[in-house]
Amino acid sequence: MDGAQQIQRVCVIGAGTIGSLLAGHLSRVAEVSVLTRRAEQATRLERDGLSVSGKSEFTGRLRATADAAELPAFDLGIIAVKATDLEHVAGGLSGLAPGATMMTIQNGLGAEELVARHGDWPLISAVTFMSGTRHSDVHVEYELDTATWLGPWAPTATPMTTVEEVARLINASGLRAEAFADLVPAQWSKLIFNSAVNSVSALTELPHVALFADEDALAPVVRALIDEGKAVAAAAGVELYEDPWEMNVLAVARGETNRSDYAHVPSMLEDVRARRRTEVDFIAGAVVREAARVGVEVPVTAAVHRLIRGREASWELGRPAHVRVAS
Amino acid sequence: MDGAQQIQRVCVIGAGTIGSLLAGHLSRVAEVSVLTRRAEQATRLERDGLSVSGKSEFTGRLRATADAAELPAFDLGIIAVKATDLEHVAGGLSGLAPGATMMTIQNGLGAEELVARHGDWPLISAVTFMSGTRHSDVHVEYELDTATWLGPWAPTATPMTTVEEVARLINASGLRAEAFADLVPAQWSKLIFNSAVNSVSALTELPHVALFADEDALAPVVRALIDEGKAVAAAAGVELYEDPWEMNVLAVARGETNRSDYAHVPSMLEDVRARRRTEVDFIAGAVVREAARVGVEVPVTAAVHRLIRGREASWELGRPAHVRVAS
Repeated sequence: MDGAQQIQRVCVIGAGTIGSLLAGHLSRVAEVSVLTRRAEQATRLERDGLSVSGKSEFTGRLRATADAAELPAFDLGIIAVKATDLEHVAGGLSGLAPGATMMTIQNGLGAEELVARHGDWPLISAVTFMSGTRHSDVHVEYELDTATWLGPWAPTATPMTTVEEVARLINASGLRAEAFADLVPAQWSKLIFNSAVNSVSALTELPHVALFADEDALAPVVRALIDEGKAVAAAAGVELYEDPWEMNVLAVARGETNRSDYAHVPSMLEDVRARRRTEVDFIAGAVVREAARVGVEVPVTAAVHRLIRGREASWELGRPAHVRVAS
Repeated sequence: MDGAQQIQRVCVIGAGTIGSLLAGHLSRVAEVSVLTRRAEQATRLERDGLSVSGKSEFTGRLRATADAAELPAFDLGIIAVKATDLEHVAGGLSGLAPGATMMTIQNGLGAEELVARHGDWPLISAVTFMSGTRHSDVHVEYELDTATWLGPWAPTATPMTTVEEVARLINASGLRAEAFADLVPAQWSKLIFNSAVNSVSALTELPHVALFADEDALAPVVRALIDEGKAVAAAAGVELYEDPWEMNVLAVARGETNRSDYAHVPSMLEDVRARRRTEVDFIAGAVVREAARVGVEVPVTAAVHRLIRGREASWELGRPAHVRVAS
């Protein structure tokens, strides 16, 4: 394969918010199929199409199935499930689409390694800064129209020309994408930002509000988490693309000035509110694992990782039948 | 004043669980008055008496008022309000009962200093390990019949004979008490235990279950908090009475073996469930203040202190009108 327009058939695996935004937009410039978790959603998507509102307004037509074996052939697979579902989903893709390129777009670190264990596809790493709201199985609202960043995953030697073609396709579809020769610095910037902001949000149940940058409130703990992450990155030889503390300050300032009733709800807080397992093992947990590998102490990150896992455990435990008031 | 039986009139300030357990029992061996927050509770207590069930079974008769100026004279005042209410309550006692001894029984550190700013009463420090459930304004259940420990507060040079007399009175009433010449080692053991266990419980919403001593779960974060507290105690020249980590292991083992449906709910988790301000400033916050005073780093304790304050802030903020799903 060489030259332009090689990617004509795209399969989006996972139809959550990010998957729906990608599938909907890409259906305007490519043949799109979607792998859903529930058969009911696939049926509705094939019947009604996928409506996008907000920053884009259209209804895309696409193929959809809940059975990986029924997927039509594709040139590009975009795995847009949550990190917590990745092992299960990647296992189901094993042996499929041997000629395709696969792109991972999970929060945190480690998605590529996990997918690579299930096939020898060339892999593209991605981090996305766009966001939206999934109003139903067939309707997603496109809200924050910031970019998705792509880069070749070095161990599979994915050609940069392929990454650039995927970025062009995404841009042509109405979303924003940018291709990077080395995505690692940007991945780590976002990892460290999320390790701090998502963790603090999950434990306090606060959306990403001004208190996160307020020295009398949460700034010292956000900074402690970010400083630990930066120490790990430095020891791992990663130069960051953006400073995660500046990302925190800017994001909070944007929320304050634009809309008084608006505050970004990090995905882990969404999970806590819904009592769903969070992606903490792939975010703060990934920082802890990398810290152990490079021999850096990260006491605050290790603590919030375990506290969030404890919070998840509380949902399974329920409340004890017998409650005592403590001394 | 010298000799035995000098304390005949006791005023219990605050009629929560601990205050009600003390007032009810002491009414069997002394004239007891109670200062309540709500006039309605005082009226009911004077009319119906205070019923105690559980480990004790009786109804005590006592005086009660919500107006400090109406309190009858007393020899011993026991201030049993939450640490968060102490400043307000102590201010209202200013100028009252100049001949009385005052006893503080709050969680954490700093209650004595705060009370001392409002009067020159000799002060008794206390920590309690008993617990119960307050079923109504006039009914408290006595559950865990462990002791209350008392000691003279050194800056007011309270005579040890007075402390011993108070301990005898409490024991005679049907509760358990023990007098210590120096309570500081026991206060700090409980402070450090609570700084770890109450904080982890408040953030995870788990009662004090086996996960708190499980190395694959919360033990590393509980131990990190305890180790920071122990480093502060050592730097402050305090030798601990009990090892807080052993207290954690024993408490969890007791819960496991005694009743499968039982797990102790630390007071700060009660507060989180009720969306009430917690005593974290007097517990983990006190460790952070002492750490700054003696020049010890306590990054994990500082983080959980601010995270719990952030959690409290989330109740005032409410949920934003506009909710976004994060990338």
